[in-house]
Amino acid sequence: MTAFNVPTIVQALKAARNEWRNAQRRSNGSGGRTFPSTDAMVRIMDDLKGILFPMRLGPSDLRQESEDYYVGHTLHAMLHTLLQQVRLELKCHEAHKNDDTALDQKAIQLVHDFSQALPDIRRLLDSDVMAAYHGDPAANSVDEVLLCYPGVSAMIHHRIAHRLYRLGLPLLARVSAELAHSQTGIDIHPGAQIGGSFFIDHGTGVVIGETAIIGERVRIYQAVTLGAKRFPTDDCGQLEKGLPRHPIVEDDVVIYAGATILGRVTLGHGCTIGGNVWLTHDVPPGRHVTQAESKDTKISDPEIR
Amino acid sequence: MTAFNVPTIVQALKAARNEWRNAQRRSNGSGGRTFPSTDAMVRIMDDLKGILFPMRLGPSDLRQESEDYYVGHTLHAMLHTLLQQVRLELKCHEAHKNDDTALDQKAIQLVHDFSQALPDIRRLLDSDVMAAYHGDPAANSVDEVLLCYPGVSAMIHHRIAHRLYRLGLPLLARVSAELAHSQTGIDIHPGAQIGGSFFIDHGTGVVIGETAIIGERVRIYQAVTLGAKRFPTDDCGQLEKGLPRHPIVEDDVVIYAGATILGRVTLGHGCTIGGNVWLTHDVPPGRHVTQAESKDTKISDPEIR
Amino acid sequence: MTAFNVPTIVQALKAARNEWRNAQRRSNGSGGRTFPSTDAMVRIMDDLKGILFPMRLGPSDLRQESEDYYVGHTLHAMLHTLLQQVRLELKCHEAHKNDDTALDQKAIQLVHDFSQALPDIRRLLDSDVMAAYHGDPAANSVDEVLLCYPGVSAMIHHRIAHRLYRLGLPLLARVSAELAHSQTGIDIHPGAQIGGSFFIDHGTGVVIGETAIIGERVRIYQAVTLGAKRFPTDDCGQLEKGLPRHPIVEDDVVIYAGATILGRVTLGHGCTIGGNVWLTHDVPPGRHVTQAESKDTKISDPEIR
Amino acid sequence: MTAFNVPTIVQALKAARNEWRNAQRRSNGSGGRTFPSTDAMVRIMDDLKGILFPMRLGPSDLRQESEDYYVGHTLHAMLHTLLQQVRLELKCHEAHKNDDTALDQKAIQLVHDFSQALPDIRRLLDSDVMAAYHGDPAANSVDEVLLCYPGVSAMIHHRIAHRLYRLGLPLLARVSAELAHSQTGIDIHPGAQIGGSFFIDHGTGVVIGETAIIGERVRIYQAVTLGAKRFPTDDCGQLEKGLPRHPIVEDDVVIYAGATILGRVTLGHGCTIGGNVWLTHDVPPGRHVTQAESKDTKISDPEIR
Amino acid sequence: MTAFNVPTIVQALKAARNEWRNAQRRSNGSGGRTFPSTDAMVRIMDDLKGILFPMRLGPSDLRQESEDYYVGHTLHAMLHTLLQQVRLELKCHEAHKNDDTALDQKAIQLVHDFSQALPDIRRLLDSDVMAAYHGDPAANSVDEVLLCYPGVSAMIHHRIAHRLYRLGLPLLARVSAELAHSQTGIDIHPGAQIGGSFFIDHGTGVVIGETAIIGERVRIYQAVTLGAKRFPTDDCGQLEKGLPRHPIVEDDVVIYAGATILGRVTLGHGCTIGGNVWLTHDVPPGRHVTQAESKDTKISDPEIR
Amino acid sequence: MTAFNVPTIVQALKAARNEWRNAQRRSNGSGGRTFPSTDAMVRIMDDLKGILFPMRLGPSDLRQESEDYYVGHTLHAMLHTLLQQVRLELKCHEAHKNDDTALDQKAIQLVHDFSQALPDIRRLLDSDVMAAYHGDPAANSVDEVLLCYPGVSAMIHHRIAHRLYRLGLPLLARVSAELAHSQTGIDIHPGAQIGGSFFIDHGTGVVIGETAIIGERVRIYQAVTLGAKRFPTDDCGQLEKGLPRHPIVEDDVVIYAGATILGRVTLGHGCTIGGNVWLTHDVPPGRHVTQAESKDTKISDPEIR
Repeated sequence: MTAFNVPTIVQALKAARNEWRNAQRRSNGSGGRTFPSTDAMVRIMDDLKGILFPMRLGPSDLRQESEDYYVGHTLHAMLHTLLQQVRLELKCHEAHKNDDTALDQKAIQLVHDFSQALPDIRRLLDSDVMAAYHGDPAANSVDEVLLCYPGVSAMIHHRIAHRLYRLGLPLLARVSAELAHSQTGIDIHPGAQIGGSFFIDHGTGVVIGETAIIGERVRIYQAVTLGAKRFPTDDCGQLEKGLPRHPIVEDDVVIYAGATILGRVTLGHGCTIGGNVWLTHDVPPGRHVTQAESKDTKISDPEIR
Repeated sequence: MTAFNVPTIVQALKAARNEWRNAQRRSNGSGGRTFPSTDAMVRIMDDLKGILFPMRLGPSDLRQESEDYYVGHTLHAMLHTLLQQVRLELKCHEAHKNDDTALDQKAIQLVHDFSQALPDIRRLLDSDVMAAYHGDPAANSVDEVLLCYPGVSAMIHHRIAHRLYRLGLPLLARVSAELAHSQTGIDIHPGAQIGGSFFIDHGTGVVIGETAIIGERVRIYQAVTLGAKRFPTDDCGQLEKGLPRHPIVEDDVVIYAGATILGRVTLGHGCTIGGNVWLTHDVPPGRHVTQAESKDTKISDPEIR
Repeated sequence: MTAFNVPTIVQALKAARNEWRNAQRRSNGSGGRTFPSTDAMVRIMDDLKGILFPMRLGPSDLRQESEDYYVGHTLHAMLHTLLQQVRLELKCHEAHKNDDTALDQKAIQLVHDFSQALPDIRRLLDSDVMAAYHGDPAANSVDEVLLCYPGVSAMIHHRIAHRLYRLGLPLLARVSAELAHSQTGIDIHPGAQIGGSFFIDHGTGVVIGETAIIGERVRIYQAVTLGAKRFPTDDCGQLEKGLPRHPIVEDDVVIYAGATILGRVTLGHGCTIGGNVWLTHDVPPGRHVTQAESKDTKISDPEIR
Repeated sequence: MTAFNVPTIVQALKAARNEWRNAQRRSNGSGGRTFPSTDAMVRIMDDLKGILFPMRLGPSDLRQESEDYYVGHTLHAMLHTLLQQVRLELKCHEAHKNDDTALDQKAIQLVHDFSQALPDIRRLLDSDVMAAYHGDPAANSVDEVLLCYPGVSAMIHHRIAHRLYRLGLPLLARVSAELAHSQTGIDIHPGAQIGGSFFIDHGTGVVIGETAIIGERVRIYQAVTLGAKRFPTDDCGQLEKGLPRHPIVEDDVVIYAGATILGRVTLGHGCTIGGNVWLTHDVPPGRHVTQAESKDTKISDPEIR
Repeated sequence: MTAFNVPTIVQALKAARNEWRNAQRRSNGSGGRTFPSTDAMVRIMDDLKGILFPMRLGPSDLRQESEDYYVGHTLHAMLHTLLQQVRLELKCHEAHKNDDTALDQKAIQLVHDFSQALPDIRRLLDSDVMAAYHGDPAANSVDEVLLCYPGVSAMIHHRIAHRLYRLGLPLLARVSAELAHSQTGIDIHPGAQIGGSFFIDHGTGVVIGETAIIGERVRIYQAVTLGAKRFPTDDCGQLEKGLPRHPIVEDDVVIYAGATILGRVTLGHGCTIGGNVWLTHDVPPGRHVTQAESKDTKISDPEIR
Repeated sequence: MTAFNVPTIVQALKAARNEWRNAQRRSNGSGGRTFPSTDAMVRIMDDLKGILFPMRLGPSDLRQESEDYYVGHTLHAMLHTLLQQVRLELKCHEAHKNDDTALDQKAIQLVHDFSQALPDIRRLLDSDVMAAYHGDPAANSVDEVLLCYPGVSAMIHHRIAHRLYRLGLPLLARVSAELAHSQTGIDIHPGAQIGGSFFIDHGTGVVIGETAIIGERVRIYQAVTLGAKRFPTDDCGQLEKGLPRHPIVEDDVVIYAGATILGRVTLGHGCTIGGNVWLTHDVPPGRHVTQAESKDTKISDPEIR
């Protein structure tokens, strides 16, 4: 068998990398990786699922009598793994580039704050589980909901990712969110603020944007979009980042499958948005929104088509 | 490096778990896990794929001359793994809580019945593979269809999950179905009854509900929903479970991408439902249904918008 | 515990396989597998990601000073693994069935040609990364885009799969594409021709067909379909394969979420297609297309419904 | 490639198994495995090493602050794994064959008793570690001794195996002992009674028999045998099992490399046995035993040989 | 952190390799590996243990009712793995260097012959197991012997390795033998001819040479050497290879621990060789050989030493 | 099933640890592990074998054309793994306890020095391989020697361990040496100085002490001991460490199996030591040493015994 001239390709790939690095004004020095690792976040999320729900999402041979040992051991390992990832993300931020001690102290503080939030995250997720159980006629038990429902799985990721986002760790938050997106088809930006007892049924194709605000006891179905209407650009033509541009959804709203809500509009308390509705304006509390003509269709015989 | 005060968090997490358990009236005793394991179902489904299609989905070094050894060995291991999972699910059901011998006998009977159904499942799946090959102009061979088509993969899961569902194992059925949902974006409730030669193309976003009934030689495309229109509640305001609430699709129907069919309506033999149609009423046999005005659009110059 | 009568089931499964093989006119001989392996393609794609982006998608402890060693070592291993898969695919093609030497030479030539294309693939992907960074207000860095954006991940797979497709390896191409489809919910047929600086945001539910042609700097959102309108059949009622049947999208077009473009239509340079638009005709350059009546909705009080 | 006629060999192997089973009067029924698993014992021993010495033989990222969580979690898992193996061994013993409840109760009692002994086993092993540190001029620290000395590793296995042996679990004990034998070349029968502060240097080839009794602070070197002189047979010509047939070694004895001590002899308190000595009689306390003529050798010039 | 100047070391290592290759007159071309793989032989040996003793050394969840499926499946996979290794070894032999077809045919023939021998190997090993059970007063069951006795494990390897050796595959045979040597400390050259019912107790340090011939029902203990006395050289000063140079041990001989038997001597039927005996001449049948003066020892008081 | 009262055992184990730590005057703080990891050294040794002999001990699919990529990539990874272990060992040494920067610099320097020595280590090992090939009549090729001979494997470990020992890393050196001891039964202290072309045949039971010095072209057999005669104690009764106390073996010496050489004696150039010889005095160059009476044995008839 002949060789494939590997050295030539290696050189050409190096040239391509250098073009990019020069364009990005990055050094070609001897530096190591300064970027969080997806694999590490996968392990962290798996550990967190076991820490939060030891008897359901922990190891299959766990028994209640030793739950605390399992939780303590796994928590300890997870926090130190997370600390390393937090350090890597902080290194990507400008302010910390030249002071390792300050960076280390900040990383420890952030992981400490994150760890304190875990019991509240568990309570919020319990409310989401109950919401799913009460909201789906096909649900037989809270356990089935916790193990099988992609919407619950997405919310475990989101409530953790949102906490990381609020602590100033948008990258780690984003990696966590994308793990759920890949697994469930539900794409919730970690910046979205979501109240308790939230339920997403089926879920594939759901998109919830960065500045969306969702109240208590909201229920949505597959392919619902809470998106931005337009992307304003600044004077230089650059997209303006961080502006509130996604919907506000008040308590007890239900949004059926395929509905698209765009822009900083408000869906009032208790209103209902019908399937496939396209909406770019506010809805007062308590109203039902449906298609204007409920999508008439034409039936024809194929012979005469 | 300082510690993260792990014991405090462990205690707070325990408190959160106890709140939940008290609310759910669950014991805080020393019990073990009484719930099926997702990891076990992953292994069972992988084994089943190899058992059903040894030369295509079995080990890559298999040869026809030893197919039966592979099938027999894998079948045996799979059935005993499944038996354990069936026991765990039966334990969750009220009736079997206090009679281990009856439970064991029932579990063995169920696994036995399941094993008998495998050859028929294979035949049904062969018809699905042929339907995909004949239904997609991009398909080059039946082998490509079996290996690459997410719709076929989803049907392998569904035909197995549906059998588990009919045997009275809704939890194991649901876990199997969600494995396919996560991998393909196709969400078929294990209760749905689907005839032979069924083909789903592309598939992402497809939702088929628990009481849907689908005939022979039906073809559907991505983002098609066969859903429920409303969720009736009983006198106590609880959702009524188990009522027929999803469409009946008769033989030889085609439903194009994005169509939404809701409620216990019937799509008659041989009819065609156009893309994005929203449908909540019956369609007689042989008709074409399209949007009333085929979705007119407005073209404007950007300058004057 | 009683046995499950494994031999009976093994025999029944063998009978089912033989029915299929007889129907497909396949031999029941002692042949081995002559089909590419999905597991092997998973490894090849993982290696390729590391080869193309060593410091971001390669091993987490890599350092710039030894990038070339890593790239060379991984490239070498990947090319020989690919060579085996290419041989398996070529064996499925009629022409090579009886001449092993010619098949081996062709396989080596194809892998060689593929390897030469890698630097250009990297450059195209760099343009896609920049397009995502500039196109999403939530993107904080090019690194975040490369690691987290499913649209970028899908394009890494597509640009590789498209090269395999053009080399005459449609099966390997398809397996690669489906790996991305499963992970991201984005379904791009490997035959699709896509220019540089292409950006898919969110992505779940996107479908791009085999004969689609997409220009430079195009941006699309979730659930966009570039599909075929109808499937013409030949005189025997068989689907005609390979005809141009998907849209042509010229440079600098933007297509918002949920839009469906069907058939061999052309979207002119710089035009914009609004969300949920259903389109089956050409659009001149520079125009905006939106829903005719922008989806009016009806708001009603729930009491009087 | 031709087949290897696998079915013929499978049948011939089955015939060979049946000959054996018939000769052993074993059933050819459908029974499962009723024998402990070496793999399970490997895991149990690994867990026990971590449980006994968490900061040295536990996970490399453990920290003192969470030692107890690690110990508790691992202990719990190990005890339940061990329980299964104890059940399997008890099933091999005649008396328990027909009463599952009694067997289960006995298994739980045995594992409970074993778990209670762990702190004392740790203390004994600490004394062995100190003995090694003080007994070897090449030892630099107690940590080095614990991590690197095969004699210490063999004693960890032995002190656990001896406890299992005394609890009436000779098979599990033997499997544990053979794991150490394979790893270190030190073959200590689990029945041997060995006092504290025991040190084996180098160790390869050491053999200590089932009924040997060794006092406190004994030190031995490689290739030392404490064996049986003869194997008495009973009237039927069968070996008599269980008779005391190996040496008694009193406190503070040193036995140098290659010495062979056979039969139920007593080496008195504080005596020293020289290298390569062959000994089959008692030695009074405090004496030195060396070769009668200290192994004279003859030196010759090779030319005249 | 600074770099370690990896390129310089890589070049220096290449130079060292080239020196060796030049000295060995080997090419520096682009060739691949033409040498059997130890890892592959590890897998082959593990498979063979399960094939020969499915209920004891096969998977722990196997049941008798599906033994044949397991054996057939594993046998098939093992034979094809072995075929590859046989090809690699044959390529190392001069005669087959230039004729791939002849080499392939020979490889298939050799693997076929090997597979036919497996039932007889099982029967021989059964006799070894019985010999161990009857020969050791500490043995409680034939199962314990099969699972725990290093001497039995060494014989499983040897009887397989010897068959490979006789088929003309000395390298594969040697690799198999060294796996046992590493695990048990028992070093049996694959060329040694050993009759049935052979038992090695303890075993560490046993060495049995290439041309040794051992009869039926022989028993040996740890550290026994059956070696060569001298290594005759030919006229060029090269060692003469292949000459008979190790002992012949007739039926029913017992050799106790540490005995050293050197050269082409014969130990007659039924004789016994005592511990530590050094023997370089024949022993007539039925005799006992012990040390001339049974190793007198001198006991001295330490004070006066 | 009842619980095993895990908390009680956890507390008792903690008490046992604390006794030890108090006795050793160690803190009970929150410190992490400051000790090298055996697992890490296993990986480092595996990498080093591939780096030194890429085509024989590297990955089985390597080809000469990409040797340097493999070597460079593996070398880089290994050096950084080693660096971490070196830091951990340096932290155990008193002098570096309080100056992290100095420790880091020293660690880098040591790893750098080690890396420079690799080409010379390869050359020395090549001479050992040739010595084995020429020294064993059963050796068929240099490749067989490198893959199969435990003596060669032990020397790969030793030459690396000795380099670590000389760099002042006795712990890492010892861990490496014990890995070989466990695998081969050959126990060479990393401090021993051994010249080129060294060959150990069979090897089980060989012991070579810390201060032994061995010349060029020396050959030894199984169970040879180069040990210390006595262990002098200082005034406090402590063993004096580091004194020269093992033999000096000059060039071209051969020592046959089982010979025991004790103390700081010198075996002169070219002399030969017979099997089982016990030697505690110098031997002049060129002499043969054998047992004084060549081990006469007594043959008796069993009847009259």
